Amino acid sequence: MIIILKQNTTTQQAHTLLEELEQQGFKHHFSEGEHSMIIGLIGDTSQVDMQQLLAHDMVEDVKRVSEPYKRANRKFNPDDSIFDICGRLVGEGNFSVIAGPCSVESEEQMIEVAEAVKKSGATFLRGGAFKPRTSPYAFQGLHGEGIRLLLEAKRATGLPIVTEIMNQHHLDLFNDVDVIQVGARNMQNFELLKELGHCNKPILLKRGLANTIEEWLMSAEYIMAGGNERVIFCERGIRTYETFTRNTLDLSAIPALKRLSHLPVIVDPSHATGLPWMVEPLAKAALAVGADGVMIEVHNNPKKALCDGAQSLTPEQFDAVMKKVTALAAFENKKI
Amino acid sequence: MIIILKQNTTTQQAHTLLEELEQQGFKHHFSEGEHSMIIGLIGDTSQVDMQQLLAHDMVEDVKRVSEPYKRANRKFNPDDSIFDICGRLVGEGNFSVIAGPCSVESEEQMIEVAEAVKKSGATFLRGGAFKPRTSPYAFQGLHGEGIRLLLEAKRATGLPIVTEIMNQHHLDLFNDVDVIQVGARNMQNFELLKELGHCNKPILLKRGLANTIEEWLMSAEYIMAGGNERVIFCERGIRTYETFTRNTLDLSAIPALKRLSHLPVIVDPSHATGLPWMVEPLAKAALAVGADGVMIEVHNNPKKALCDGAQSLTPEQFDAVMKKVTALAAFENKKI
Amino acid sequence: MIIILKQNTTTQQAHTLLEELEQQGFKHHFSEGEHSMIIGLIGDTSQVDMQQLLAHDMVEDVKRVSEPYKRANRKFNPDDSIFDICGRLVGEGNFSVIAGPCSVESEEQMIEVAEAVKKSGATFLRGGAFKPRTSPYAFQGLHGEGIRLLLEAKRATGLPIVTEIMNQHHLDLFNDVDVIQVGARNMQNFELLKELGHCNKPILLKRGLANTIEEWLMSAEYIMAGGNERVIFCERGIRTYETFTRNTLDLSAIPALKRLSHLPVIVDPSHATGLPWMVEPLAKAALAVGADGVMIEVHNNPKKALCDGAQSLTPEQFDAVMKKVTALAAFENKKI
Amino acid sequence: MIIILKQNTTTQQAHTLLEELEQQGFKHHFSEGEHSMIIGLIGDTSQVDMQQLLAHDMVEDVKRVSEPYKRANRKFNPDDSIFDICGRLVGEGNFSVIAGPCSVESEEQMIEVAEAVKKSGATFLRGGAFKPRTSPYAFQGLHGEGIRLLLEAKRATGLPIVTEIMNQHHLDLFNDVDVIQVGARNMQNFELLKELGHCNKPILLKRGLANTIEEWLMSAEYIMAGGNERVIFCERGIRTYETFTRNTLDLSAIPALKRLSHLPVIVDPSHATGLPWMVEPLAKAALAVGADGVMIEVHNNPKKALCDGAQSLTPEQFDAVMKKVTALAAFENKKI
Repeated sequence: MIIILKQNTTTQQAHTLLEELEQQGFKHHFSEGEHSMIIGLIGDTSQVDMQQLLAHDMVEDVKRVSEPYKRANRKFNPDDSIFDICGRLVGEGNFSVIAGPCSVESEEQMIEVAEAVKKSGATFLRGGAFKPRTSPYAFQGLHGEGIRLLLEAKRATGLPIVTEIMNQHHLDLFNDVDVIQVGARNMQNFELLKELGHCNKPILLKRGLANTIEEWLMSAEYIMAGGNERVIFCERGIRTYETFTRNTLDLSAIPALKRLSHLPVIVDPSHATGLPWMVEPLAKAALAVGADGVMIEVHNNPKKALCDGAQSLTPEQFDAVMKKVTALAAFENKKI
Repeated sequence: MIIILKQNTTTQQAHTLLEELEQQGFKHHFSEGEHSMIIGLIGDTSQVDMQQLLAHDMVEDVKRVSEPYKRANRKFNPDDSIFDICGRLVGEGNFSVIAGPCSVESEEQMIEVAEAVKKSGATFLRGGAFKPRTSPYAFQGLHGEGIRLLLEAKRATGLPIVTEIMNQHHLDLFNDVDVIQVGARNMQNFELLKELGHCNKPILLKRGLANTIEEWLMSAEYIMAGGNERVIFCERGIRTYETFTRNTLDLSAIPALKRLSHLPVIVDPSHATGLPWMVEPLAKAALAVGADGVMIEVHNNPKKALCDGAQSLTPEQFDAVMKKVTALAAFENKKI
Repeated sequence: MIIILKQNTTTQQAHTLLEELEQQGFKHHFSEGEHSMIIGLIGDTSQVDMQQLLAHDMVEDVKRVSEPYKRANRKFNPDDSIFDICGRLVGEGNFSVIAGPCSVESEEQMIEVAEAVKKSGATFLRGGAFKPRTSPYAFQGLHGEGIRLLLEAKRATGLPIVTEIMNQHHLDLFNDVDVIQVGARNMQNFELLKELGHCNKPILLKRGLANTIEEWLMSAEYIMAGGNERVIFCERGIRTYETFTRNTLDLSAIPALKRLSHLPVIVDPSHATGLPWMVEPLAKAALAVGADGVMIEVHNNPKKALCDGAQSLTPEQFDAVMKKVTALAAFENKKI
Repeated sequence: MIIILKQNTTTQQAHTLLEELEQQGFKHHFSEGEHSMIIGLIGDTSQVDMQQLLAHDMVEDVKRVSEPYKRANRKFNPDDSIFDICGRLVGEGNFSVIAGPCSVESEEQMIEVAEAVKKSGATFLRGGAFKPRTSPYAFQGLHGEGIRLLLEAKRATGLPIVTEIMNQHHLDLFNDVDVIQVGARNMQNFELLKELGHCNKPILLKRGLANTIEEWLMSAEYIMAGGNERVIFCERGIRTYETFTRNTLDLSAIPALKRLSHLPVIVDPSHATGLPWMVEPLAKAALAVGADGVMIEVHNNPKKALCDGAQSLTPEQFDAVMKKVTALAAFENKKI
């Protein structure tokens, strides 16, 4: 960590700060130039509060040299993480395809969609039992009953299931769930993240609406700090001024995360764009850019969907997308 | 609600949609022009899922005419809401000043700050007992002990207290708290909002990092739909590309909310900018633009603050700000 | 175009507006529901000023049904445009690779880079002679001499050249240039666009820092309205809150433009990210998402580059990228 | 300027960079810590290209300590600039009110508006003769004839005039104009800025749609570097995800600019919001936050306006706004 002092700071003032830092247990090197004084802080600075340093009148700026995350950091785990989830491998050379409806609505719907997506090559089944909705008057999900229906679809098809949690006190209901999803609006629900750090399920961590890549890594760190090392990132678009797409899919986040972290990263083109005809080109782009998988919304009857119908593919459309994705995965040497 | 059909839709196709809408209990008027067909939906459309309508192949676009919120809507409550909180009035002609440290650290700190801000004219005391921090390694607050210290400071000064909740299952600890704050990162933590709808405390609802004014109103609606009508909005800056300030304070949100809703709105210039020297001009601007109050961070020793020290005012600086704000409030006919 | 009137508008008031519209030569159909009145405007509304309609007290909202652009619109030109530029085809099944340094610096540099990128498979040579720089004290380009050096490099290699114009009064210097680039900061320099509408050179139109896809199409329309139909879009990242990359590359803009317009679209991963190690994955993603080409910065000595050295590839790095891109292009059936 | 080297850099490698910097004429101090090596660059670094330094493999990051602008910098000009424009003072204790229609349409319109705004207390008359429009099919202004009509309105009322330039080759037409406006879309039209550096007219420099405060200062620096020291900033809202207002007015930019620069800053609430009922509260907020003036759109018949009618005030509405603004200005000790 580097602390840059203001131009008119006296050497004496600087030394009071140096002493303070020493008392906090930090070594430092101090360099005094013609126009600036700089302090380099040595040691584990991941717990240093930059705001506190900036509160000193004499401090111009503070700059981290090392990242504030450790367990999620590739520097300390150079090899790609790979997770075995019910026999499906996620990460490092595998390309996971998570498909299913936005929300679980009925047994018939779930079985029909699950069988269809499995046939087309999906490796995981998704479906929302707890739905975060902007309006309190909108359908909020079937809750426990929704999870029961997901498990029936899993029994019928063998596909491991992915579903979203909104409240740590529902965790008991997730005992048989294979992957727990944290939605974009809960990416910085730190109480939830802490609790998930103590469960032994893989966590699919979606990026928040307007969160930076570093904040996203820090949210993974929250989960990992509790002991749960199995975090999968999911890029789902960020909020920008552009309104043609629902969000702006940030595909450059994939190589960024791959460089900074060892954890797998998947892409959700359905939520990112809200436009079903964009799913195929963006799923292919996700594969080409290095993602470890995609999550795609599929509904047997989008017009009757209780949630996000407009962005869902029909099983036939999904099948067409999968033909293209499968061919490209073979070319890229990725196993689906 | 207006549904615009695609150009090549046949009258017959349109009629299948009309029938579907009738079955859902909606009246409609249908208008067929040379180049476009339009359906106007009549009745309570606040529960209509626009996404579901958009999933129909023949639908080009859907447009709401009436707002999706009711209890927060000025149309149904033309008069400004005014809340009496321990004898302090919030809203309609009153200008509330909430001041205190980012986080509660010790009894000495809280009493010292509380007495100082009261003397300068603050009407509420703030302090964080539960702290949402980006890093799991940062100070997370004193929790129950923090609330106990806030209550001691209230006993010493008579100032009602405002403090943040991060998890609905901590509600028991908030029994004697006067105003419960929902932080920016939890603005769309719908599970928390629902629970707060059932408590009888005023809620200070901060705007999310990248949430629209309509989403913010919908989050208030979540609380109000549960029966708790006392919601106070708090604008604290939104995330933009500009990095000079920590966030970009959106003061146009104040007249917007005043027009759309009857609820009070306050402004937090400390978090919005992260720069203590910006607090005075922006607090004055908040008053001039029509806000019902401000929330300002004050710490007796910003350099030693365990959280956000860089943006805190000292009690002396706060006193200087209050002199300016008090004079302007008198000019604007607002009671502090 | 659909005009939605405010709820309390009387039929009589509505009729005054209808008459006004008739006088402007528009046919309309008027539909009066229980809670809303709607006017559908028939005829060519591309020249209607929505702002003017919104200025009427009785107007709640105005919504376009048809796009405000025509010549750039795929509806009126269903087939992909394809341009022959010095024997190189751009668009429809071709994948153009434009490579070269950010700025032209010397004859030696240009010849060396041009020969290297040609050998690796580039189809166009780029290089800046006029450089838009944030600082007036930064290197502004070699101007006429820069164009002369580009032409020498063209003579040596046969590669057609692409270079940026900043001022319509320099057009004489661009007589032998093959493609004229309009930079992001000039995307809405309408005076420049109008002038380029009268020249007979293909125009590479970069997206502005914070411009919508529709505004971008309208800027193409400016050029095309003047008679110059050869416009090539270039996505180069938009400005968002994320700072890890210089800009946020919006790859969803590619399928969007492909659906809305018949014009070719290329992608510039170098400027979008500012990070040379991101060029390979994003160039591949651009290809997979359906772009018609890429523009990549290559410098023989990035450390000595007078402009944007940090984001340039060395010729060796470019060669490695091209091997991957060429293989993927073959898989995708695109000709480089 | 501080250069932070990557962790695994050897002392020998560092020395090759130090030598390079010495050859470029820089003094430096080099500091070698346990985990990091830092180079402090001494001397005038305003012309150093950070990109070029970042292109070195061994460089982790580069950080400016001093600002890259000089003439616009308050450090070198501690006192507020004050400009006398036809007897009207702009800056330092004065509050300028620039009012008039978006575009000049007719003599009758201009005289009527000019007389009305003068009566209400405006100090400058605005009106667009050259109009930057998103669509090539929209009204583009009366050009030379528009300027002639502005000058007639000036003769009739004595109000100095402000009008926008879009092309440096129109400068001859601006000989009798009092303040030349550079619009948001031209804030980084560097060719135009350079030319305006050589004219002796005050320049009203609007902030670009998505430009940072530093970029804005650099654009002022472009003008000032040419010798024209009279630049007035105009904040007009930035582009964000929020769509309720046309743009998001960034009032925190006012105290920021006041701290960083000595130049005057005004605020345009009309363009920022696009909503006439927001002008009054935001004009008052602009005054309270420390701006040196406002620019407000006024049209004698907004419904017939050829441009941006929806955001214009009528003369009666403007008069009501001015009563509030004048009273607040008196309170704040600002002269209108």
